[in-house]
Amino acid sequence: MTTKKSFVSRVVLTCVAMCLAACVSRANAQQATPTPQINLMPIPASVTFHPGDRLPVDASFKVATRGHSDDRLKAAIARFMRRLEGRTVFTLAPGLATDDQMTQLIVHADGPGQNIPSVRENESYRIDITDRQAILKAPTVVGAIRGLETLLQLLSADRNGYFLPGVLIQDQPRFPWRGLLIDVARHFQTIEVLKRNLDGLAAVKMNVFHWHLTEDQGFRVESKKYPKLHQLGSDGNYYTQEQIKDVIAYARERGIRVVPEFDIPGHSTSWLVGYPELGSAPGPYTIERRPGIFEPALDPTREEVYKFLDVFLSEMAALFPDEYMHIGGDENEGKQWDRNPAIQTFMKAKGIKDNHALQAYFNTRLLKILQKNGKKMIGWDEILQPELPKDIVIHSWRGTAALAEAARKGYDGILSNGFYIDLIQPASHHYASDPLPADSTLTPEQARHVLGGEATMWAEWVTPETIDSRIWPRTAAIAERLWSPRTVTDVNDMYRRSTIISLQLEELGLMHKRNQDMMLRRLVRNDEIGPLKTLVSVVEPVKEYRRYQMRPQTMLSPLTGVIDAATPDADGARRFSWMVKEFLADAPRYQLYRAELTQMLSDWQESGASLGPMIDRSPALKEIKPLTKGLSELGDVGLEAISYLKLGQPPTREWREASTLKLDEAAKPYAALEFMVVPAVKQLVTAATEIGQPRRVTSQVP
Amino acid sequence: MTTKKSFVSRVVLTCVAMCLAACVSRANAQQATPTPQINLMPIPASVTFHPGDRLPVDASFKVATRGHSDDRLKAAIARFMRRLEGRTVFTLAPGLATDDQMTQLIVHADGPGQNIPSVRENESYRIDITDRQAILKAPTVVGAIRGLETLLQLLSADRNGYFLPGVLIQDQPRFPWRGLLIDVARHFQTIEVLKRNLDGLAAVKMNVFHWHLTEDQGFRVESKKYPKLHQLGSDGNYYTQEQIKDVIAYARERGIRVVPEFDIPGHSTSWLVGYPELGSAPGPYTIERRPGIFEPALDPTREEVYKFLDVFLSEMAALFPDEYMHIGGDENEGKQWDRNPAIQTFMKAKGIKDNHALQAYFNTRLLKILQKNGKKMIGWDEILQPELPKDIVIHSWRGTAALAEAARKGYDGILSNGFYIDLIQPASHHYASDPLPADSTLTPEQARHVLGGEATMWAEWVTPETIDSRIWPRTAAIAERLWSPRTVTDVNDMYRRSTIISLQLEELGLMHKRNQDMMLRRLVRNDEIGPLKTLVSVVEPVKEYRRYQMRPQTMLSPLTGVIDAATPDADGARRFSWMVKEFLADAPRYQLYRAELTQMLSDWQESGASLGPMIDRSPALKEIKPLTKGLSELGDVGLEAISYLKLGQPPTREWREASTLKLDEAAKPYAALEFMVVPAVKQLVTAATEIGQPRRVTSQVP
Repeated sequence: MTTKKSFVSRVVLTCVAMCLAACVSRANAQQATPTPQINLMPIPASVTFHPGDRLPVDASFKVATRGHSDDRLKAAIARFMRRLEGRTVFTLAPGLATDDQMTQLIVHADGPGQNIPSVRENESYRIDITDRQAILKAPTVVGAIRGLETLLQLLSADRNGYFLPGVLIQDQPRFPWRGLLIDVARHFQTIEVLKRNLDGLAAVKMNVFHWHLTEDQGFRVESKKYPKLHQLGSDGNYYTQEQIKDVIAYARERGIRVVPEFDIPGHSTSWLVGYPELGSAPGPYTIERRPGIFEPALDPTREEVYKFLDVFLSEMAALFPDEYMHIGGDENEGKQWDRNPAIQTFMKAKGIKDNHALQAYFNTRLLKILQKNGKKMIGWDEILQPELPKDIVIHSWRGTAALAEAARKGYDGILSNGFYIDLIQPASHHYASDPLPADSTLTPEQARHVLGGEATMWAEWVTPETIDSRIWPRTAAIAERLWSPRTVTDVNDMYRRSTIISLQLEELGLMHKRNQDMMLRRLVRNDEIGPLKTLVSVVEPVKEYRRYQMRPQTMLSPLTGVIDAATPDADGARRFSWMVKEFLADAPRYQLYRAELTQMLSDWQESGASLGPMIDRSPALKEIKPLTKGLSELGDVGLEAISYLKLGQPPTREWREASTLKLDEAAKPYAALEFMVVPAVKQLVTAATEIGQPRRVTSQVP
Repeated sequence: MTTKKSFVSRVVLTCVAMCLAACVSRANAQQATPTPQINLMPIPASVTFHPGDRLPVDASFKVATRGHSDDRLKAAIARFMRRLEGRTVFTLAPGLATDDQMTQLIVHADGPGQNIPSVRENESYRIDITDRQAILKAPTVVGAIRGLETLLQLLSADRNGYFLPGVLIQDQPRFPWRGLLIDVARHFQTIEVLKRNLDGLAAVKMNVFHWHLTEDQGFRVESKKYPKLHQLGSDGNYYTQEQIKDVIAYARERGIRVVPEFDIPGHSTSWLVGYPELGSAPGPYTIERRPGIFEPALDPTREEVYKFLDVFLSEMAALFPDEYMHIGGDENEGKQWDRNPAIQTFMKAKGIKDNHALQAYFNTRLLKILQKNGKKMIGWDEILQPELPKDIVIHSWRGTAALAEAARKGYDGILSNGFYIDLIQPASHHYASDPLPADSTLTPEQARHVLGGEATMWAEWVTPETIDSRIWPRTAAIAERLWSPRTVTDVNDMYRRSTIISLQLEELGLMHKRNQDMMLRRLVRNDEIGPLKTLVSVVEPVKEYRRYQMRPQTMLSPLTGVIDAATPDADGARRFSWMVKEFLADAPRYQLYRAELTQMLSDWQESGASLGPMIDRSPALKEIKPLTKGLSELGDVGLEAISYLKLGQPPTREWREASTLKLDEAAKPYAALEFMVVPAVKQLVTAATEIGQPRRVTSQVP
């Protein structure tokens, strides 16, 4: 059988995945003979191709189980079938097959694994696909669930139909703790949002949903013991205990742990609205509406506070089955403590020398409550204190150094530094962050304390409408960092696969792609969103904490502006920058991608001009007026630079100076949005300026 | 003050809405001097402009209440503010204003109205907007809620900012019963789907959600009395009683009644899965997976059946507060009855002459159960029997004649004939259907029995992913038919406003627009959906019941094909047909829209060609292969015809014959999809053919 399919290569290719991504990427760059391209994310620990083999997937496709089977596995297979049907538009026979011979996929789990998802779960699996049958084998149901996701990613198609490529995959995660924190306090997120994101986590083999439930800006869980917590601390936006149980069950079905966080003693304003007597200052308190770090903190010197926490945390411990409970512990500056004479007296009497020690005292008391309830404590860096036992977990926002230091002391830890997806950094930035970097000096014994990491979706500036676009697809890159071998680091291939996976995530109901057009339609007030879409494809929200500085809003503000429709990793900007690099490397012909670059730059010119009248009809767009000028001018400068390069004639000094001024102006953010294409246009200008000068080495172009 | 705003016309214009739509439309067609254009849907009973007046809407916008105020009104105002913020990106001050002088909008409700939404609710309201203040006055909270929706539709913008135009509106509905039936049995619809559609109903002032809860294919409501009903009849897809209460409360907040339907004695297979002893044949029964009419029916001759119904319907009567209960009663062919000797014996003994009379006997017994529970009976045409009292309501799928006949007999009735939105007819078709048509011969007294109508979303071929695209925006046209004066009938203006309203409906979370691209991406397996989108913009699913005949599927099949991504009222086809009409009316210049038509036809040619390779990569598209050829050929023929017209040279007979063959071929549906542009292209061909012949009257072009 000879076909053009890349997978059906006659070359036997066996390699572990760490080299695979790299060689695939090289093959792409060189346009070499067909090499198996792997569209999996995260990349498995090991992949071996069976060249020429393909298992057809048609309307007769059936699944059977062997070995252990239970409701969770059956439900996972049913979801798998449903997604397969959705993509292929086949009506598959419902239920499981009974005749192994007529069955295309055998799912063989050895046993159920942990009853409650656990950090000790064995998530490994093995997939062997021949042209006769696919066999998925795993020691646990969760391992089988991970393998089913791999199978869905393997689904391929050509003119002969759908098929699974012949392949042997042996896979297990690098780290046992791979999570996503969702802050539901700054902006409440509906159950629907949580469920579709749990599906997304399962699709990229993540296994922890860290539910950041309380904050200065909201208390989001029903307490039957202290109902004023949610009644007065949430504006009515909280989860009932029934809903919490439903989410936990939904996560469990997908092999995902739910770790709740109750952030204390700081970050606790919303607790104090209903129970001001717990605070270190008299109150009254109101729900905080601003972003930032605030003073309110629980009073760690009063027994009533511990009684309250004992009752409340015991209630929560019964609600959340996970063996870990996150107590936050971050960013408490202790200003209320400093000003409270009773607290100062207490500290003197007990010989507590500073606020840091006072918080350590608080944590020690808290630990006893957690231990009594059979829970292990996890908290942010600040909780690390010599007094605490070794079974607590340090959650590091500070970085790998802090994590390594904890590991050396014998503490387990997870990393979130580098994984702050609320800060609008590119996926490549997060991808470069590794809980156990190559240069780690930890011994193997110490390294085992590094359990993994978590992406953090802090929610100051996301609503149910936009949150998916901040989580996806970048979280897939973080998932890969935490699952795949350390050496899987090819950024270009990560982006290539991320684009494919992003599309598949849509079938789970995730809105990261489809909501953008809708938001643009609302802004433009009609269907003609083309020019605005062009702008949004080359700008991004400003990074880190600059959004609030440049464009202050509160937790009650609408997040429906252009900045909210814009996304990290703006696709037009990435494409443009990549093409400019190829174009300049093609010197002195300057042929490669010239047509596409010219078209893109012309589109910027035209879109910049079209946006003016659109802004007049839609005042919500007024704030982007300066960007429309910038867009046109970037188009002008880029086209002119390409003309010079094409002609081989250097531009005048006047042009160079004028262009530099325009680029400097375009580099300034407006409406908390910044052009991501300025460096690439600058490269074109520099190249044009240097015409006739001694040739620069093109590889210097970043 | 002189501005270009159309609303700020200096011409005093006072007219009732029935003439307004027509004159607006005329103004458009003639490109006349600016005339106030009304973007409301449904059009109010009366609109009077205050020329020159405009009330600015900026970040200082505040709302106060006068007269009656309650939680429902406050929540409605809070939602109003939230949507206003979403569109304008203003952060408005939360809560209500206390100082009338500084308040832009005063909402004055005289009283709460009906505690439970009722067919007797007074929904009228009055809006008076000057350049100083807007006053919304209504006798009831529901009237105020209707007025708030009008205000959101009135929100306008220009380069000076957002504003409400100066206007006096006095409005009330033509019919008191304006509903949407959602069949949640053929395909289960999530609570999320129901809630966003309730928001959509409120936006177009509909007031009944008819919840079609039971069918052969599913039993969707939890029964605590007979749990096997939902446990065995639903595949686990049912609403808990808590969820039902939640939906009812959500609807009440928006002034919407919830009328449950329990369809008996036919359409009841799913009941019999758990309780086969209720059936007229021994069973066992399984949930029906096919569409159609089936034999299973309750046994109307056994007392146990009435005991069961008494307990079950009493349970449901307590759950659903509406005064009406829908008992279905349709499409029972009685085949099980014919074959059951005990039933035949019973009929002979009681002197019941036929199955029709037997069902009347059943209904009489059922009526007693409903009456005992304080409910009025509503059912489909078939229930109309002389024995039944006058306070039952006839729900007519048969048509206005049946409705009028019932009204003459003194029965209340509502119309669904003409409002079957599952049949993929254009909005214009539904718009033409009137429960009380102009030629009605009913006396005013009889006419009062015609309470209104309901759009019916039968759910054989919709899932949560696609249902919104079948409901919206066409249901807005039906809402207008049922609310606005009878004389509001301008189809072009209806479509113009429908396009605007459709966009606003998106802010409620409705997915009718944004899901299409996602479905196309899944089919194409990447982001390059352009050519497929071009195809989908000019084809529609086949009408009426031909889909199943041409492309049979079951209730378990994926609804993710091109037919599911395609929609009624395909926008490209509508635009093309309209332009062709204008182009031909511009004879002999043939200048008007020629450029745009040429571009569109070229796009068809290119898209048709591009789709071939896409289909090779995506076997799910294989079924549309014949359509890609049709698309290209329609492009060819259309472009050639335009060339002939432009040159003024008649084509050869060979061309005409070849073109006719191509058009005949393109008129054939494939994959249950049909081109909606064949008649328009045919008009071009005919016009080209007639070059040089005596001029036809262009108005003959439909």
